Amino acid sequence: MSTTLINNVPKTAVNSNDHLTGNPFLLNCWYVGAWSNEVHDDKILARQLLSKRVVFFRDEAGKVSALEDRCSHRFAPLSTGRHTGNGVRCMYHGLVFNGKGNCVEEPGVKGVSRGTDIQAYPTAEKDAFIWIWMGDPDLADESLIPDCSYQSQPGKWDWEPRYRYFNADYRLIADNLLDFSHLTFVHENTLGGSKKIANIKPKTEIYDKGVRITRWYLNEDKVAPYLRGFETFEGAVDRWNIYDLETKGNIFNMDSGSAPAGSGAQEGTFVPEAMLFHATQIITPETEQSSHFFWSYAHNFNLGDPKFTTMLTDRIAEGFEEDKEMIEAQQIIVNENQDKRFAYIHFDRGLSAGRKTLAKALAEEAEYFASKSAAE
Amino acid sequence: MSTTLINNVPKTAVNSNDHLTGNPFLLNCWYVGAWSNEVHDDKILARQLLSKRVVFFRDEAGKVSALEDRCSHRFAPLSTGRHTGNGVRCMYHGLVFNGKGNCVEEPGVKGVSRGTDIQAYPTAEKDAFIWIWMGDPDLADESLIPDCSYQSQPGKWDWEPRYRYFNADYRLIADNLLDFSHLTFVHENTLGGSKKIANIKPKTEIYDKGVRITRWYLNEDKVAPYLRGFETFEGAVDRWNIYDLETKGNIFNMDSGSAPAGSGAQEGTFVPEAMLFHATQIITPETEQSSHFFWSYAHNFNLGDPKFTTMLTDRIAEGFEEDKEMIEAQQIIVNENQDKRFAYIHFDRGLSAGRKTLAKALAEEAEYFASKSAAE
Amino acid sequence: MSTTLINNVPKTAVNSNDHLTGNPFLLNCWYVGAWSNEVHDDKILARQLLSKRVVFFRDEAGKVSALEDRCSHRFAPLSTGRHTGNGVRCMYHGLVFNGKGNCVEEPGVKGVSRGTDIQAYPTAEKDAFIWIWMGDPDLADESLIPDCSYQSQPGKWDWEPRYRYFNADYRLIADNLLDFSHLTFVHENTLGGSKKIANIKPKTEIYDKGVRITRWYLNEDKVAPYLRGFETFEGAVDRWNIYDLETKGNIFNMDSGSAPAGSGAQEGTFVPEAMLFHATQIITPETEQSSHFFWSYAHNFNLGDPKFTTMLTDRIAEGFEEDKEMIEAQQIIVNENQDKRFAYIHFDRGLSAGRKTLAKALAEEAEYFASKSAAE
Repeated sequence: MSTTLINNVPKTAVNSNDHLTGNPFLLNCWYVGAWSNEVHDDKILARQLLSKRVVFFRDEAGKVSALEDRCSHRFAPLSTGRHTGNGVRCMYHGLVFNGKGNCVEEPGVKGVSRGTDIQAYPTAEKDAFIWIWMGDPDLADESLIPDCSYQSQPGKWDWEPRYRYFNADYRLIADNLLDFSHLTFVHENTLGGSKKIANIKPKTEIYDKGVRITRWYLNEDKVAPYLRGFETFEGAVDRWNIYDLETKGNIFNMDSGSAPAGSGAQEGTFVPEAMLFHATQIITPETEQSSHFFWSYAHNFNLGDPKFTTMLTDRIAEGFEEDKEMIEAQQIIVNENQDKRFAYIHFDRGLSAGRKTLAKALAEEAEYFASKSAAE
Repeated sequence: MSTTLINNVPKTAVNSNDHLTGNPFLLNCWYVGAWSNEVHDDKILARQLLSKRVVFFRDEAGKVSALEDRCSHRFAPLSTGRHTGNGVRCMYHGLVFNGKGNCVEEPGVKGVSRGTDIQAYPTAEKDAFIWIWMGDPDLADESLIPDCSYQSQPGKWDWEPRYRYFNADYRLIADNLLDFSHLTFVHENTLGGSKKIANIKPKTEIYDKGVRITRWYLNEDKVAPYLRGFETFEGAVDRWNIYDLETKGNIFNMDSGSAPAGSGAQEGTFVPEAMLFHATQIITPETEQSSHFFWSYAHNFNLGDPKFTTMLTDRIAEGFEEDKEMIEAQQIIVNENQDKRFAYIHFDRGLSAGRKTLAKALAEEAEYFASKSAAE
Repeated sequence: MSTTLINNVPKTAVNSNDHLTGNPFLLNCWYVGAWSNEVHDDKILARQLLSKRVVFFRDEAGKVSALEDRCSHRFAPLSTGRHTGNGVRCMYHGLVFNGKGNCVEEPGVKGVSRGTDIQAYPTAEKDAFIWIWMGDPDLADESLIPDCSYQSQPGKWDWEPRYRYFNADYRLIADNLLDFSHLTFVHENTLGGSKKIANIKPKTEIYDKGVRITRWYLNEDKVAPYLRGFETFEGAVDRWNIYDLETKGNIFNMDSGSAPAGSGAQEGTFVPEAMLFHATQIITPETEQSSHFFWSYAHNFNLGDPKFTTMLTDRIAEGFEEDKEMIEAQQIIVNENQDKRFAYIHFDRGLSAGRKTLAKALAEEAEYFASKSAAE
């Protein structure tokens, strides 16, 4: 993440009915559409993203394409179609579309009828993700793809891909990830910690691209519940979480770890037995009320032991189940109380900062589209 | 019920689309929110009442409180929270609310942030019910709580608490309870009776607080089907139902019974073998299209035999199942025919009287809120 | 079907959002409401037709009536009522309605209250169908009932009645039936055929009452997949489909067959071993988004063998399951893309002709109701 610090964390309440305003999604950015391994061989993956239905498939060279999931002819979904060479055949009347959305075959005739092309979305594949750009395609610069390179360092970090579906607005999930104070309550027996931890106030910084939240809890008695039994050392623990949200695309990268107390982690020295983690957590809106959650939890120890990686990841997943249950319950109450505002409490600096960077990005994007539309 | 007789039963049709008009619920009255035994120990009972979600819980002294089911902070439902001493802790970020709705604890800080209090509703506990007042709290006078004292006379009346959920507007259920003519058809094999009974016209009286409906059927061959096998005497039967609706709160108290024919019941003399009943039936709206139904069926014979009470109550419950099936089917047709009016037939005096008292009470309440609002 | 040829097949796209315009159903025509054998003895058949709930029942002489499924009194559905002599008794309060919709009995009173009659719809029974007229009853002329007489020629044609429910607009189903080009793709392994067949362009003719589509495929290697094992002759095959859509009522009559290649079928000569079929396929809208599909598949060979008829019909039914799956998937995408138009391709002449005749009939009917309303 860029290191331009713009520290101006809002101390006012965030309105719960933000999401009633016009445009709830950022469009001009790369979103994760799928894990790379979800699209293979002749599989056509159907997924709704930003309220639009999309199909993903690979051409014969393995390159991924994304098309709208709608045949131009009679609107049959292409996801019920068939992979064919470099394209997809609609299995209602047989039209074939290539990865650019061009209709390239119409049965029973040479050439194709006019107006049969459909929309294609720019895609890219990097760090085990398939990325998709659903905004102005002129801006789809691959150099803007967020860094998730922890997933591309075999031998240094082990991890496995996970996916979870939330019946909730992506902003409620982002709020949750930016907020450490819920760990003690929601994750009492999983990711959480002591009452003492509940009282530690994290440091919150706003950068040009997003938000960083840092929390150190030194000299704890034990590692977090999810790590019990996996300890690589004995005695007191220094723990930390450093969370970077990149606002565009809802990209959360978290460095965290547990090291022997006083071994120098806070000053940047990691002794060999320090347990280091890097979590990649990405939310892609499905609709205004539902979200895709792609995540991994890379670790630097017990490398080359997939069973360990699965067991560790399963423990983290338990915590996300707890979040999912809470956030989906919250969504119902939010929906029924559109006329009321969230109360702001002292622990809200992190999530308020996230909301603020989002509001700024949405405003800039609205301005971009307005001026583009005026120029046309 | 007050004995001021205001006899003016409407003979005109009641419009089925009454419930499209502004305010379908009376607010300034005591409603039954729960049976007392539904809220015990550390249980937090969640229930939607008059379209608002409420939680009930007891403090350490056993006093019941009712709060809106919404944490002020990020709108997590308190019903997923945890009972703590005299309050409830939201298990998202740990805020604690007392029975008055005050936020009394915010983790990690002394005192609490501003604007964190939530709404509390006046409650009271009487005659095995938890009562709740959801209108203007200044008017929540406990002396207005309807009399359900048959449930507080052990040794004289035996009964057990029952609850049933209806996917129907409370007014359709009240219509049903005020109408004896459906017994022959809906309850042919349960609560019903002969064709002769179907033709008996009940007496309907309007009082200041509600409606009384009285029906005597003298010298019947048998008791009602649900009493067969339980007879305390042989031979012909005088039967009666005297139904009091207290409009505010939808409180139905019914005295009914079966006595040996000619033994003087109609004149007020009850021989020892007379089978007397007192039914308490209360409808509390959940939403405009769904209702809670709390009921008991007290009897004055076979006392101290809980199995008998359960068996008798089960038989009555069969009849309510028949009502539920009919009323929920009716609700669907009512919803699809908002432009049409119910036809008025000669047996409608009871239910029309009920609708009339309700319309009057709703109008008075609208006037109260309008003048209060003007005064502010 | 009338033989007045009006050949003017549109070559422009049909707008997918046709069905957002005012009146999606033709009213002044006979629709199939049920198979005759669905209404028998004391059965009351409830079915929603053109967004209205209807009950069918027979009087003591066997004559079928159709009433709205709504008691005039408190809107209980008559479908939960009881057949009684020549009428239906509402089992809420006991009102009885005859086949003309007149309330003929009100319990406990001589005569009946005013305003208790309900709506009856003209019905007729012909060719194993119960027909219903839901438009202006003055126009309900039984001579307008479409011809389905293949179902009334025992000894010449064998068939059995089938019903299927579609979660789709009737127009999407009609599109499908008028389109042969989907057979190769949707029905690859059932009703379909070779790639060669996919490329044959059918002849489309518009008549005053509807559309005729004709397709001959001469000298095919084999019969269609669904006929394999049933062949009555060996060697090459001439196959044909001649499809008549009668727009009013969505009546599809299809003559089809397979004859030895060169045996003269195209010229009207059918050798004894020719396999002839007559399909009756009728769509009656349930709502704007759901439809009833009544169909039979008469055959002229293996007569008197009900097991064969069932086996053959089951094979066709497999094909309709494939259509149902595709059309219901299409409906979802159509609903989500009301702002977009179907692209027109060269194979769309048939379905575009069907849409055109429907648009014309709807416009004429709108004019009829407008002038009638002006005259009143």
